[in-house]
Amino acid sequence: MSDPNDQPLVIFTPSGKRGRVAPGTTVLAAARQLGVDLDSVCGGRGICSKCQITPSYGQFSKHGVTVHEDALSEWNKVEQRYDDKRGLKQGRRLGCQACIQRDVVLDVPPESQVHRQVIRKSADTRPMVMDPATRLYFVEVAEPDMHEPSGDFERLATALKEQWKVEAVTADPSFLAKLQGVLRKGDWQVTVAVHADHTGATPRVLDIWPGLHEGGLFGLAIDLGSTTIAAHLTDLETGEVKAASGLMNPQIRFGEDLMSRVSYVMMNPGGEKELTAAVRGALADLAKALAKEAGISPDLIVEATIVCNPVMHHLLLGIDPTELGQAPFALALSEALSLPAGDLDLTTINTRARTYILPCIAGHVGADAAAVSLATAPEMSDELMLVIDVGTNAEILLGDKSRVLACSSPTGPAFEGAQISSGQRAAPGAIERVEINPETKEPRFRVIGVDHWSDEDGFAAAAASTGVTGICGSGIIEAVAEMRMAGLIDPSGLIGSAEQTGTARCEAEGRTHSYVIYDGTDEGGPKVSVTQGDIRAIQLAKSALYAGAQLLMDERGAEKVDRIVLAGAFGAHISPKHAMVLGMIPDAPLDKVTSAGNAAGTGARMALCSVAARRQIETGVGKITKIETAIAPRFQEHFVAANAIPHATAPFPELSSVVNLPTVSFNTGGDGSGGNRRRRRRG
Amino acid sequence: MSDPNDQPLVIFTPSGKRGRVAPGTTVLAAARQLGVDLDSVCGGRGICSKCQITPSYGQFSKHGVTVHEDALSEWNKVEQRYDDKRGLKQGRRLGCQACIQRDVVLDVPPESQVHRQVIRKSADTRPMVMDPATRLYFVEVAEPDMHEPSGDFERLATALKEQWKVEAVTADPSFLAKLQGVLRKGDWQVTVAVHADHTGATPRVLDIWPGLHEGGLFGLAIDLGSTTIAAHLTDLETGEVKAASGLMNPQIRFGEDLMSRVSYVMMNPGGEKELTAAVRGALADLAKALAKEAGISPDLIVEATIVCNPVMHHLLLGIDPTELGQAPFALALSEALSLPAGDLDLTTINTRARTYILPCIAGHVGADAAAVSLATAPEMSDELMLVIDVGTNAEILLGDKSRVLACSSPTGPAFEGAQISSGQRAAPGAIERVEINPETKEPRFRVIGVDHWSDEDGFAAAAASTGVTGICGSGIIEAVAEMRMAGLIDPSGLIGSAEQTGTARCEAEGRTHSYVIYDGTDEGGPKVSVTQGDIRAIQLAKSALYAGAQLLMDERGAEKVDRIVLAGAFGAHISPKHAMVLGMIPDAPLDKVTSAGNAAGTGARMALCSVAARRQIETGVGKITKIETAIAPRFQEHFVAANAIPHATAPFPELSSVVNLPTVSFNTGGDGSGGNRRRRRRG
Repeated sequence: MSDPNDQPLVIFTPSGKRGRVAPGTTVLAAARQLGVDLDSVCGGRGICSKCQITPSYGQFSKHGVTVHEDALSEWNKVEQRYDDKRGLKQGRRLGCQACIQRDVVLDVPPESQVHRQVIRKSADTRPMVMDPATRLYFVEVAEPDMHEPSGDFERLATALKEQWKVEAVTADPSFLAKLQGVLRKGDWQVTVAVHADHTGATPRVLDIWPGLHEGGLFGLAIDLGSTTIAAHLTDLETGEVKAASGLMNPQIRFGEDLMSRVSYVMMNPGGEKELTAAVRGALADLAKALAKEAGISPDLIVEATIVCNPVMHHLLLGIDPTELGQAPFALALSEALSLPAGDLDLTTINTRARTYILPCIAGHVGADAAAVSLATAPEMSDELMLVIDVGTNAEILLGDKSRVLACSSPTGPAFEGAQISSGQRAAPGAIERVEINPETKEPRFRVIGVDHWSDEDGFAAAAASTGVTGICGSGIIEAVAEMRMAGLIDPSGLIGSAEQTGTARCEAEGRTHSYVIYDGTDEGGPKVSVTQGDIRAIQLAKSALYAGAQLLMDERGAEKVDRIVLAGAFGAHISPKHAMVLGMIPDAPLDKVTSAGNAAGTGARMALCSVAARRQIETGVGKITKIETAIAPRFQEHFVAANAIPHATAPFPELSSVVNLPTVSFNTGGDGSGGNRRRRRRG
Repeated sequence: MSDPNDQPLVIFTPSGKRGRVAPGTTVLAAARQLGVDLDSVCGGRGICSKCQITPSYGQFSKHGVTVHEDALSEWNKVEQRYDDKRGLKQGRRLGCQACIQRDVVLDVPPESQVHRQVIRKSADTRPMVMDPATRLYFVEVAEPDMHEPSGDFERLATALKEQWKVEAVTADPSFLAKLQGVLRKGDWQVTVAVHADHTGATPRVLDIWPGLHEGGLFGLAIDLGSTTIAAHLTDLETGEVKAASGLMNPQIRFGEDLMSRVSYVMMNPGGEKELTAAVRGALADLAKALAKEAGISPDLIVEATIVCNPVMHHLLLGIDPTELGQAPFALALSEALSLPAGDLDLTTINTRARTYILPCIAGHVGADAAAVSLATAPEMSDELMLVIDVGTNAEILLGDKSRVLACSSPTGPAFEGAQISSGQRAAPGAIERVEINPETKEPRFRVIGVDHWSDEDGFAAAAASTGVTGICGSGIIEAVAEMRMAGLIDPSGLIGSAEQTGTARCEAEGRTHSYVIYDGTDEGGPKVSVTQGDIRAIQLAKSALYAGAQLLMDERGAEKVDRIVLAGAFGAHISPKHAMVLGMIPDAPLDKVTSAGNAAGTGARMALCSVAARRQIETGVGKITKIETAIAPRFQEHFVAANAIPHATAPFPELSSVVNLPTVSFNTGGDGSGGNRRRRRRG
C-alpha cells in the first residue's frame, strides 16, 4: 500500500467535504466515500447524467491545492456518447465516468444534489431541502433461471438491495400485474419508483418503466380549505411547482361555513357521505386538471400531501364530524396519516400513489395549522413570534425555541367579507384598499382588477369592465381602520353623525350612521357603505382574534411579542398598520409584522418534498401546548377588552409612535352596542 | 419482605409450570408471572370468562403439595354475578377474580388457553396450535379532555398499549369512520380486533364493538384449485371449522385445464382480466355462502388464507400467467403476500379483512404445494418421506430433517377420469372401486352413492337412482391395477385377447382389446370398458408421477423411501396397494403408504390459525431444493422405464412380498405401444 498522503486530494464544493481517494476512483464513488450528496438514478452507468459535476482548475489557496489539467481522466466513450446524444454543459463531467487522478476541486451544482435546497418563497418560511419519500432507481434485474427458480419480483427486490441498499420492498398486486411485461420490454433494465417514508413501513415499489425513466416524478400539495381547495403540482426531484390551481370546495352547497356543514350532517343521517364524496370528487378533478395543465401523464403523480382544518380532515376521511361541533371537540384521529390514494378515491393519479395527511394539533387546530407551523417554524425562532393564520377560524401560534402554544379562535367570516352589508369575496370589482383623508374625510379606494386608485385619472375607464361591486375582507379592514384614523368612528366603534364628523358621507340610518365609500346608484350600481353593523361584525371578529393571541401571551407570561407573522392568502393582503389600528393583532414594531403568504400551502409542499419535514411536524405537534379558548376563563374578559378600537386598556406604544389616533367620542347616551348581537358581561 | 419460600406455591397443569407468588395474587396475574398460557379478552374485569381454571384439592405427591379448601379466596361479587348471569361450570373459577392464598394446583382447560392445540385430523398432518394473527382485546379508553386534546384513536392506541402491550396500532379510514360512535355507545369500553402478523407490519385495528364482543372472530381457509374452490370457515379462537363448502372454479368456461387458460390469455389480450374477475367473484360468493351456512355475520370474517397453484395464484392476483406457460416458467412473485381483502375484491366479508396468500415454491410448484409441505412437514421427519399431491399436476416432495426436495410433474388429467373412454368426475354413479377375480376374471365394483358392491344383493335397487354412469379416477386406477393382478394386461400394459386371457370380457377393438367392466346397454345405459387407450393414458400419467419421484430420489441419492404420504382429495381415495401395483409410486411397505387427506386445505387452515405456521412455511420454502423436471436430463429415461406396470427395471420387493403379479405377455409382434401418442427414445 502506498502512503495515503500520496493519494489525490478531492475537495467538493459547496459542501467543503474533502478527503483522499485511491487514484482512479470515479467522482461518484469518491462522493459516496466522503458522504457528499451527489445524485444518481442509473447507479453509475453513464445514462442518467444526474451526477454531473464541474471541475475547477488552477491554484486554490483557500483549499491549499493546485488543480492541474490532468486532475481527472480524459473523456471516455460513455461520456462522449452522452455528450453526442444529449449534450453536456460546458465544463461539466459525468461523475460516474470521470476518474480522479490528481488533486482536484469539484463543484456539485444544485441540480446534481439529491437534497438540494429549494429557494424559499418568503422570508418568513423556512428553506426547504429536497428529501422526497418517492425516488427513482435504475436497476439491472437478474433474468429468471430454471435452476434457481424465484419470482421476478424477488429478483427486482434483490437488485434494489444490492444496487441501491433499498431493502425488503413490497408491492401491490396491480404493480405485480405490470412487472413481468416491463422487465422484458426493458430487457431486464428498468427504473422503479420506490416510496420509503419515515413511518417505518416497508418501502413500496409504486411503479416501473422499461430502461431509464426520464419523465420525472410529481406530487400534489393540497391545501383543502372550507371555501377553496388549492393544489400545487410539484416536481419531486427539483421541488419546482409545475402547475398550481384551485377550485371552490363543492361542500359549500351543504353549508357556507364549517359549522353549518356539521349541522347538515347532524340533521341528515349519512349526510357525511355526501360531503365526503363531494370533496373527494373535487380533489380528483383538481388533480386531473393540474396534470393536464402541466402536460404530464397523471400516472407520474405518485404522491399527495393534504393540509386542512379538523372538520375538513374528518369529512375527507369519511368520518362524521359531529363530535367536532360540540364539547369536548374530540377528534377521531389527530396523528398524521399515510394512505393509499385510492382510500381517498383519488383515482385520477397513479393508482398506487400514496397520500400523506399532516397531523392535527387539536379539535379546533388542524393539519392546516400544523402546516403553518412547519412553514413558519416558531419553535426555531429566537424571538417570541406570533403566527396568525387568518380565515373563518383563526389559528394562532405563539412561541420561540423554548416553547410553542397554539389555539384557534372563532373569528367568524367577517374578515372574508361575509356578514358585511356590502361585503363580497375577493374578486374583480371588490374594493380591496381604502384611504380616507383625515382633513376632508373623503375616501379613495382601489378595486381588484384595476391598477388605478379611484381618484386617479383613468380609473373610470379602467373600472368599466369590472365595475365597483362591493368590498372584500382586506377592504373592510382598511376602511374601518381608516375611519378610526380619520376620526369617523370613536374607540368604542360608534360611527359619528354628519354633524359630529363634519362630512355628509356619514349618513343616518335609523338610530345609527353609516359611512358611504362609493355611491354608484346614479349609474345603476351599488352603494358601498360601512354600516354600524359592519363595524360591530369586524369588532367581534378582531376581538376574537386578539383575545386568542392574548390568551396565549398570558399562558406564556409575555407582555408583548417580538414578531408577528400573518399567514393565509388573506394575511398577504392585510396591511400591518391597518391591522394594528384595528387592534386585530397585539402591538408590535410595524416592521416586525410580516406576511408568510399561504403558509399552510407551503407546509403542504414541504411535507411533499421532504420526509424530514414530516418527521419534524409529527414530533412538533406533540410539543405544542394546546389552549382551548372555549374553556379558558379569561377569554371572555380579553374578548370584551379587545372590542374597543384598537383596545380598551392595552397601550399600543409601538402603534402610537407611528400613528396618532384622534380622541373622539360619539356616544350620546343611545345604545352604543348597536348591531352587537352577542351580549357580554363587561369585565 | 417475608421469606419467599413462605409464599404460596402455585402449580399449573397441564403445562407443569410452577412458582411462588405473593399471597392474594390473582390466578390470572400468577399465570402471567409464570408464563402460563391463560386467555383473557377483558383483561381481568371478570366479564369475558376466558380465564376459567379448575383448582384441585387434596394431596398431590407428584407435585409435593397438599391443597387445602381455602387455597383460593372465596367467591367475590364479580364471580358471583358472572355465575348468576351466565353460569360457571362445576368446579370452575374465574382466574382474574380468584386469589391465591395457599399452595394450589390449578388446571387450565383447553378452552382457556390462547395457544390451544387443535386436534389434528389425520396422522399425517402435524398438530396445529392456535396462534391467530387477529385477536380480540377488551379495552377501557380514556374519555376526551379539552385540557389535553388528543384523538379518540390515539387514546384507543394508548389503551391497547397500556392494557395489552399492543403497540403502535394503525387503522384504515373506514375504521376511523366507525370509531367515535362505537366508543360512545360502549361508554368508552370496547372490544377491538387487532391484526398483528409476523411480517413486521404495524398492528392494525380491524374492527370495534361496544362493550365485550362475544360473537367471536372467523377466518376462511381457501383451497383454490383449477377445478374446484373449497373453503373452510374457521373459528379464529378455537380453530373449529364452522362450515365448509366448495364450488366449481368458474374459470372452467375459459379452459378445463390450466394450460388452456394460459392459452386463452395468450390468444385474447386482456383475457386475464376476465379470468381474474371470474375467480374473485367465486371467492366472494363462496365467502357469503359460508357465512350464511354458519349463521354468522360476514363482518365477523376478518381473515382469509389462500393456497393455489402458480397459475391460479397469478390469475387471482390479476397477473398475466403467460410467463408460467413457457420456459423459464418465471413467477411474477413467489413470496407470501399479506393483502387487504379488498385488493382481491373479496368484499363480502369484513371490509377491513386481511388475506394471506402462501408462498409459491417455484414456477410449477405453487402455494398449494407449500401448504401440503406445511401440513405434512417432511422437514421434521426422521424417516425419508415422499409426499405426493395428486391432481392434474402432481406436486412431489421428498425429504427428511436433513433436506427437502420438490418438483412437479405433468401427470395430465387421466387420474381425474379425463381422457379416459368411460371416464367421468367423481360423482354419484361413477365406478370408484373395482375388484377382478383372478380365477374367473369377473369384475365387481362399487359406485359413488351406493353402499353395495355390484355383486351383492340389493345393488340393483340401490343403484337405481344413481345408475352406473362411468368410471372416476380412483376407479380407473383400481381397474388397471386389478387387470394387472388378474393377468388381463401384461407388464407392458397390453390387454390380452379373449383367447389369451380366457374371458369374453376382453373384446377386440380394432387392433387392440378392451375389458368390459359393466354393460348397461340392454337397459339403455353405458358400457364401461377399460380400453387399450385408457391403459396408455394411465401409463403416461403414472410414469410422469413415478419419474418425478425418482428424480428427487436420484438428487437425494436415495434407493428407496421410508414412507409415502398421498395428499389431495383424490389421494384419500387411492388404495395404496393398487397405486403400487400400477407403479404410480415407488416401492415401500404398504403400511407406510398413507393418506393425508386434503393436505393443501389443512395447510391453509394452519396458516389461518397460526402466524407461527406462516413464518414456518415462509422460511421452509426457501430451504426446499427445487428440481425442474422439464430440464432434468434423466427425467425422460425415468419416464420411459416407469411406463411398464409396475416398472421395467425397479424390483418392488415390498410389493412382491404381498402381491404376486402373474408373468404374462400379450405382445404378438403388433404395435404394443398402441395408443401411446408420445414417441420416446428408449434409454
